[in-house]
Amino acid sequence: MALEQNIAVLIGGVGGAKLASGLAAILPPQRLTFIVNTGDDFWHLGLKICPDLDTLMYTLAGLGNPQLGWGLQDDSLTVLTALQKRYGFETWFRLGDQDLATHLLRSHRLRAGESLTATTRHLCQKLGVQPTLLPMCDAEVPTLIDTAAHGELGFQEYFVKHRWQPALRSIRHSGCEAAQPSAAVRAALQAADVVLLAPSNPWLSIAPILSVAGMRELLQSLTVPVVAVTPVIGGAAVKGPTAKIMRELGLEVTAENVALYYQGIISGFVNDRRNRTLRLAGLRTVKLDTLMHDINDKIALARSMLDWIGAWGA
Amino acid sequence: MALEQNIAVLIGGVGGAKLASGLAAILPPQRLTFIVNTGDDFWHLGLKICPDLDTLMYTLAGLGNPQLGWGLQDDSLTVLTALQKRYGFETWFRLGDQDLATHLLRSHRLRAGESLTATTRHLCQKLGVQPTLLPMCDAEVPTLIDTAAHGELGFQEYFVKHRWQPALRSIRHSGCEAAQPSAAVRAALQAADVVLLAPSNPWLSIAPILSVAGMRELLQSLTVPVVAVTPVIGGAAVKGPTAKIMRELGLEVTAENVALYYQGIISGFVNDRRNRTLRLAGLRTVKLDTLMHDINDKIALARSMLDWIGAWGA
Repeated sequence: MALEQNIAVLIGGVGGAKLASGLAAILPPQRLTFIVNTGDDFWHLGLKICPDLDTLMYTLAGLGNPQLGWGLQDDSLTVLTALQKRYGFETWFRLGDQDLATHLLRSHRLRAGESLTATTRHLCQKLGVQPTLLPMCDAEVPTLIDTAAHGELGFQEYFVKHRWQPALRSIRHSGCEAAQPSAAVRAALQAADVVLLAPSNPWLSIAPILSVAGMRELLQSLTVPVVAVTPVIGGAAVKGPTAKIMRELGLEVTAENVALYYQGIISGFVNDRRNRTLRLAGLRTVKLDTLMHDINDKIALARSMLDWIGAWGA
Repeated sequence: MALEQNIAVLIGGVGGAKLASGLAAILPPQRLTFIVNTGDDFWHLGLKICPDLDTLMYTLAGLGNPQLGWGLQDDSLTVLTALQKRYGFETWFRLGDQDLATHLLRSHRLRAGESLTATTRHLCQKLGVQPTLLPMCDAEVPTLIDTAAHGELGFQEYFVKHRWQPALRSIRHSGCEAAQPSAAVRAALQAADVVLLAPSNPWLSIAPILSVAGMRELLQSLTVPVVAVTPVIGGAAVKGPTAKIMRELGLEVTAENVALYYQGIISGFVNDRRNRTLRLAGLRTVKLDTLMHDINDKIALARSMLDWIGAWGA
């Protein structure tokens, strides 16, 4: 594994954060850039909330809540309780008190005209997060979920309020045509020696990144390895709605269908050792243990994946 | 004392809240309207903060912090601490966690286009505040304080950050020419049988209300008693910077100078029994005990004041 390589990772929140921890543990931080899904972002009570950026930021700062996989350790709910009890405000979206400090500061800086990229840099710097976190773009590209039961829902309404239970008919990335990869995202991808697609939900977390106008072309123009890690293990997802969504989209829950979804972008695919072997023309594959319980598992996967990719040229 | 009278009170925050409690304890709530200074209001971290409205609202809801005279009882500072410790944000303005719920909700509704009058009505209703609280106007009329040491300061910068220590040269009510009393303020004053000026700081708390274009004329057009209560007792102010400011404006610290400041608007003046007798042509005066320690003092002052005014016609 060459430590002198620049690694760029397309990534969502909870699903990707485990691999992010593994990569951050073994790579020099100046070599590591995360390009993060912001399709989940929304304005709530005048606050700009960026669930995936925050999950990664808190995780990499060592402040994340290990039980939930998102939010901050030991956070309290005083403000939310007052909103609910005193003012009857709907509190389906959980906002911790310490977490609110992040949302307040971010919203304030965005309103003052700062880009989400610059605000994220500022927050990360204050929290001591050393790898680079980049929102996929500075424009707002909210993911909208069309459901049979409720019509089109905002992402957090679908995901949190309705706990991703309504059957999904289609997914829309509102505003993606007018968005573009930021200069920082473009530079990170162009400087990358390896691009990874984290084992995040392909349809909910990676698709929004790919929807940004020009992003797909930018990835396709790269000559370096672009490698996805399967989020499907043994016919199921490790956590969250990946398997449910695949079924609703009429897809069998297999790693192969994930690899097919990424076809045209990826040159390599990390399959899980429990899955059946996958053969797609022009795609390098490897079977590794992609189930990550603890930091040792995360480091082991990151290391063996990069070792495997490093050997391609040989 | 006639309970069938409509009472409108021009009022600031901490200084006026004591009399407000006394009035609220004895009058039917539908008869009582507070017209509140909003010159202290400011946007801070993307939150609209209305110190005087909040002090009155919390006091009348029975939620106020009796030690501080502002803020909420038993409030915590988790969010503020996170802003300071994690993000190095300047925290000279104290924001309690439960208090933040109010600011978040208010800011959110204002940004959605609701007027401050309507937002205040909503918050009061949720908190069970029965008398009517009206901001002096819906436009923003921030009080700016010109100081020798720092030039012109925003009100909260002057009052909280610098603890009203810089010598004051002049006071400006930015935007007052373009502001106007809201329809609700106009209606409350026109329906009033008695108008009171609370013992708030005349220059910092009542002057902003009087600065609103048309407010002075509106008050002068009334034929009902308009009565101020002295904030000066025995050559000093009970609390806060009233005496200091009078000296900086070149005024001797007397109740007479307060009455003179209100000349042309008031027809009556409640002096304190400790002060020297005050005689101004055309001004009815009375001496009462205006020092309020507990709820009995507050009720006694409210009652004796209204009784005195009620006897004018006799």
